[in-house]
Amino acid sequence: MSIPFEVEATNRSARLGRLSTPHGVVETPVFMPVGTVASVKGVSQDILEELGVQILLGNTYHLFLRPGVEQVRQLGGLHRFMAWPRAILTDSGGFQVFSLNELRQVSEEGVKFRSHLDGSSHLFTPESAMEAQIGLGADIIMAFDECTEHPADRERVRQSMELTLRWAERSKKHFEAHKHEVPWSKNAKRSGAIQTDQTQALFGIVQGGMDAAQRKESAERTIEIGFPGYAIGGLSVGEPRAVTREVVEATVQHLPADKPRYLMGVGTPEEIVEYAGLGIDMMDCVLPTRAARHGLLFTSEGRVSIKQARYASDQSPLDANCGCRVCQRYSRAYLRHLYAANEVLAQVLNTVHNLSFYLDTMRAVRHSIALGNRS
Amino acid sequence: MSIPFEVEATNRSARLGRLSTPHGVVETPVFMPVGTVASVKGVSQDILEELGVQILLGNTYHLFLRPGVEQVRQLGGLHRFMAWPRAILTDSGGFQVFSLNELRQVSEEGVKFRSHLDGSSHLFTPESAMEAQIGLGADIIMAFDECTEHPADRERVRQSMELTLRWAERSKKHFEAHKHEVPWSKNAKRSGAIQTDQTQALFGIVQGGMDAAQRKESAERTIEIGFPGYAIGGLSVGEPRAVTREVVEATVQHLPADKPRYLMGVGTPEEIVEYAGLGIDMMDCVLPTRAARHGLLFTSEGRVSIKQARYASDQSPLDANCGCRVCQRYSRAYLRHLYAANEVLAQVLNTVHNLSFYLDTMRAVRHSIALGNRS
Repeated sequence: MSIPFEVEATNRSARLGRLSTPHGVVETPVFMPVGTVASVKGVSQDILEELGVQILLGNTYHLFLRPGVEQVRQLGGLHRFMAWPRAILTDSGGFQVFSLNELRQVSEEGVKFRSHLDGSSHLFTPESAMEAQIGLGADIIMAFDECTEHPADRERVRQSMELTLRWAERSKKHFEAHKHEVPWSKNAKRSGAIQTDQTQALFGIVQGGMDAAQRKESAERTIEIGFPGYAIGGLSVGEPRAVTREVVEATVQHLPADKPRYLMGVGTPEEIVEYAGLGIDMMDCVLPTRAARHGLLFTSEGRVSIKQARYASDQSPLDANCGCRVCQRYSRAYLRHLYAANEVLAQVLNTVHNLSFYLDTMRAVRHSIALGNRS
Repeated sequence: MSIPFEVEATNRSARLGRLSTPHGVVETPVFMPVGTVASVKGVSQDILEELGVQILLGNTYHLFLRPGVEQVRQLGGLHRFMAWPRAILTDSGGFQVFSLNELRQVSEEGVKFRSHLDGSSHLFTPESAMEAQIGLGADIIMAFDECTEHPADRERVRQSMELTLRWAERSKKHFEAHKHEVPWSKNAKRSGAIQTDQTQALFGIVQGGMDAAQRKESAERTIEIGFPGYAIGGLSVGEPRAVTREVVEATVQHLPADKPRYLMGVGTPEEIVEYAGLGIDMMDCVLPTRAARHGLLFTSEGRVSIKQARYASDQSPLDANCGCRVCQRYSRAYLRHLYAANEVLAQVLNTVHNLSFYLDTMRAVRHSIALGNRS
């Protein structure tokens, strides 16, 4: 169940690490682009490789609905299905059920929800979420949790945290009993199998709302259950950014130093630098890809809303300090035209640039930790 | 006004040629992908280069409306604006006015039409169409013509042909007087200028409906006006495919052997091979790109409608005989999933493959002519 993780250098709280997954080494701190339904919207896998993406995030909820877990499993798992040889992490589906389903029904057993695609009714339990994630075959999978809504009172946060702890135990138990069923298992003797004794790694998720004491308790009791990595969940749910940071700080200090720490669903370029500084090793966020689709671009000189008329005659590159294939070739005027003309290439190029900016940012963070002079 | 064109080999009617444009040599017979508003929908220019695209087609009508000719001209012309260093051809706008405007008003002066974007009123004349195409700065531009509707009676075809002939004279006259105003002219002394004495090349367009005698007359009288290349227009307007072929055959024999011949707006992979066999040197068509967006893919073993459920578990490549980056990496199952999930990457990958198939087809045609054994 373990996943090799070495901390190679530290600088104050920040850590430079190497996470060895069955599909390659991931240098941390790492940003994981989101590939919801087995695709980072608009970007081909070879471009992702070229950008230096080390690990992708897939959404179990979406993949469960389409194309379906059994479909992916029979095709050898997500890596083979989407022709992505590097590492993948899947979430447990808990967050999407929370964010996409207003009519969800939570019980001790699990969560009943309706598909946002066709209204069909489904039940996610810790056991079925593990079964789905084992079938998809990501390198790192997540315990099934309840993402506590915000705001929530102290008692509600406690009940939700307790439920998540019970689900964490059930997740671990089911995973341990079935972890060798992953489609790329050496034992599977099928196409897509890889030569490794490693299984997937199941990470636990710390909840506890916005309260430092409950976060501490959630962390300690999740660690007691025992996982090879820990995530901080339940953030980016509408709280002010200052609160997010406080909660991260209050939580991360209770997580073991020798295990990877994953902060789910954040953040802006400035924030991912800040969280890496707090000792976070892994982050994911839809922001670079979603913002790209709305023409919001991140550059070394701040945000650019490329739809604005002021860029219509701007012959300069989007970001003169960026080496990505978009900034090396195209002008702001052209990118603005593509956006204004509603051309699909706008989404493609904007996404490539924003991902490049995030990945460059994380490369700079790693470099800075290695040099021992965290900026 | 001339554009160097050498016929290097012939095989029956087919010709292998080299067309030397100000932005590079084009080996003919050539297929020109359509990049309507300065973008081949969904495909980045570096991928187009990798596919071996030698010359792109831009639509003057669309570019005139958005981003506007003056905008493109001030940015150094279309090549520089869209970061495409190779050759470009623009149509005159006549065909789009014909196909997108039911309320167009044709007079001796030109065509009044309404924008399909905002309903604004515009007038294209031979002079304004030349002005637009000089401002856009494509290597090859087209005389302003009236695309005769189908069906049309003999008298209507004659009137339309006569109008196109008068417009061809006006187009040539205006072009000759203004051809040095092209934005990349050496004389322009501006960014984007290239070191060549060449100007753009203005091609004439043969009309004449579906009638062999009128096609012959149109060809002869267009040649009398004198152009460095000749297009066959007014086809693919609803007539049966057998008629298209007959008209092409009836027309091409009257075109000079030492000038490039361009058949506008055709066709299927089988048809472009056939037309090259009849002595056509240049073709363009939206079919490979538009069909891709609808999941219709061309392969060495025939059409594949990738949306079909039969491909959901198909692990084979789209086309086992294709070397494109899509067929080298992805399975039919994945392409089918992307299409079914309405992912943008479906359009991107499908377009790359279809273009690859068309370009490979033309490469094979050129190879076959060179070998002297036309298939």
